[in-house]
Amino acid sequence: MREIYFDNSATTRCFPEVADIVRKTMLEDYGNPSSKHIKGMEAERYFRTAREQIASTLKVKPREIIFTSGGTESNNTALIGTALSKRRMGKHIITSNVEHAAIYKPLEFLEEEGWEITFLPVDSKGHISLEELRQAIRPDTVLVSIMYVNNEMGAVEPISEIGRIVKEQNPNTLFHTDAIQAYGKYDIRPKKEHIDMLSVSGHKIHGPKGIGFLYLDEKVHIKPLIYGGGQQEDMRSGTHNVPGMAGLGLAAEMVYTDHAAKMERLQNLKDYFIDQVSMLDGVTVNSEKGAAGAPQIVSVSFAGVRAEVLLHALEERGIYVSSGSACSSNHPGISGTLKAIGVKQELLDSTLRFSFSEFNTEDEVDIAIAALKELLPVLRRFYRH
Amino acid sequence: MREIYFDNSATTRCFPEVADIVRKTMLEDYGNPSSKHIKGMEAERYFRTAREQIASTLKVKPREIIFTSGGTESNNTALIGTALSKRRMGKHIITSNVEHAAIYKPLEFLEEEGWEITFLPVDSKGHISLEELRQAIRPDTVLVSIMYVNNEMGAVEPISEIGRIVKEQNPNTLFHTDAIQAYGKYDIRPKKEHIDMLSVSGHKIHGPKGIGFLYLDEKVHIKPLIYGGGQQEDMRSGTHNVPGMAGLGLAAEMVYTDHAAKMERLQNLKDYFIDQVSMLDGVTVNSEKGAAGAPQIVSVSFAGVRAEVLLHALEERGIYVSSGSACSSNHPGISGTLKAIGVKQELLDSTLRFSFSEFNTEDEVDIAIAALKELLPVLRRFYRH
Repeated sequence: MREIYFDNSATTRCFPEVADIVRKTMLEDYGNPSSKHIKGMEAERYFRTAREQIASTLKVKPREIIFTSGGTESNNTALIGTALSKRRMGKHIITSNVEHAAIYKPLEFLEEEGWEITFLPVDSKGHISLEELRQAIRPDTVLVSIMYVNNEMGAVEPISEIGRIVKEQNPNTLFHTDAIQAYGKYDIRPKKEHIDMLSVSGHKIHGPKGIGFLYLDEKVHIKPLIYGGGQQEDMRSGTHNVPGMAGLGLAAEMVYTDHAAKMERLQNLKDYFIDQVSMLDGVTVNSEKGAAGAPQIVSVSFAGVRAEVLLHALEERGIYVSSGSACSSNHPGISGTLKAIGVKQELLDSTLRFSFSEFNTEDEVDIAIAALKELLPVLRRFYRH
Repeated sequence: MREIYFDNSATTRCFPEVADIVRKTMLEDYGNPSSKHIKGMEAERYFRTAREQIASTLKVKPREIIFTSGGTESNNTALIGTALSKRRMGKHIITSNVEHAAIYKPLEFLEEEGWEITFLPVDSKGHISLEELRQAIRPDTVLVSIMYVNNEMGAVEPISEIGRIVKEQNPNTLFHTDAIQAYGKYDIRPKKEHIDMLSVSGHKIHGPKGIGFLYLDEKVHIKPLIYGGGQQEDMRSGTHNVPGMAGLGLAAEMVYTDHAAKMERLQNLKDYFIDQVSMLDGVTVNSEKGAAGAPQIVSVSFAGVRAEVLLHALEERGIYVSSGSACSSNHPGISGTLKAIGVKQELLDSTLRFSFSEFNTEDEVDIAIAALKELLPVLRRFYRH
């Protein structure tokens, strides 16, 4: 059966070239960069190249790229590292109420430890109010953390305006953005957007799992989360994950090659899907068409159908999608984001996320739409009220 | 040129089978275990299999294996997680003065945060005194952390006696061991050795870099280090590094297959090397022959030669060894362990570590010994006093 993978915001298939460099650094150039002999230096070269590859996609310095084990660790480092290092300045942090668990769970930990967290609400499009943000920033606000692209429905926050407002209101407040769904899709310029810290995950951009990075502006000093051998200028200890780093560096370079053309294609694919799915009965699209929304994520509510039932019916036809964000394990529950943007109560449990990558085609969309057309009337007959 | 890799305590070459499963989970079975469709379930199966493979090598339950990004994160989780969760019971921690930076650096952080750390000294063989340990344990001692095998000279601590004493003196004190150089070499039985937590790194046993685990006894509850989606029973959030986990599970199974025979061979190789190197002029072996020392690590001091000069001279002949522990970056300095075991001041800077794996042969030892025999007299002539 042909597989149609529309769950790219959960994880992506690796580029074959990435798998090749991972293999090479596992079997041939397998040294530890901390070793003083040539095998260590070879390994160190992969690390440096990867840093350079990534830095050039953001127009920042290689030393501002701190490799981590993934987006979750990047977020934890930014939040907990900032909180611990700035506690003399204050213990107030601002975020939104549509963040990923990798943001709100470490914030919950900080709350238990005595920090005060302000959660900004969002409108029906998933955007925070810049005015509310402005008013929320106080002299003791050490950090504002707002995601770049929402993982559940693709809302794009006005990051550079947020950055500007943060610095206007309090130049000592740091600005972090969870860019896990944004990196690889947007030309992000931390220096222009007033971003002090930015979190990225490798496996969302056809890179390896178990690797990510935190962009950390060289002028910003926070505490590390993990202590040890002093690797990466003491910001992240542990033997360099050379295969992961090399794979992520290459993936970053690859996604940002012919980038504008690829993103236009992805945006068109998304719009094509939205057009097609909107023509079906009882469908509400919770994401925006065109440049107003992220190019890869579409949230759709199907009235009168349970999301999980539809998910499994599609799966039987080789079509893979997601209910909720799929980044969260053992916490199914109802999506906080969908509630926050005002999706009607009766649709909360009837919403699927379709997320695309550069591997997907219009042909695949056609097959998925045809499947939905067949399945929806059948499943609606069996829906228990 | 033939490469002779005697730096296996820094990192090892992966098993080809491990590289194969990593590749397969990057390109084919690349799902996110948190996804609810079949690609997620496939990925989840790799995770479960890996946990089972590892658990069976330790005779513990699969759910007691918490995957991390490596040994450093495992150590940080054990130390900081215990400290934060037990602070109402007390703020005293005991360790030794020959631990790896991945132990003493997080302890330094805890010290700054108000914890009190007792460092036990070691004798000339690198062993702590059990009597001193007994006396150091107090009602407010929340944790004892003692490494299993020293990474610089291969001393093996009497772990099960340490475990017994800890529990006799204070049943509420947790016992953690950094087993990064021990796992794969010894039949470790946490349940019999009173080990509550045990840290392991994948890349030291021919597994992938960027993956490791913390054995955490199911009766023990500590705080996680990294918060987010709630993976691994909330103990370690972040999308499962499926390729890393699958690779580590397989590597664990492989190193523990025909284990006794392989370890006898490794022990014999070490003893053969010690016998041969001891016959050279001006050589002091800082490690023990036979079962008294670890089967893979030999520290040797070469009077009248700078370690780094000898390291590079060997490197030119394709022989890779280590000065110091090589796990620490940008902190060369003089080894704390060598000082602690009483290596003479003038030999501290003249000491190399030779570390073996199951890939090494006697033939390679012969080549290395022949190289040393040629190089030592030449280098001694150039040594500046």
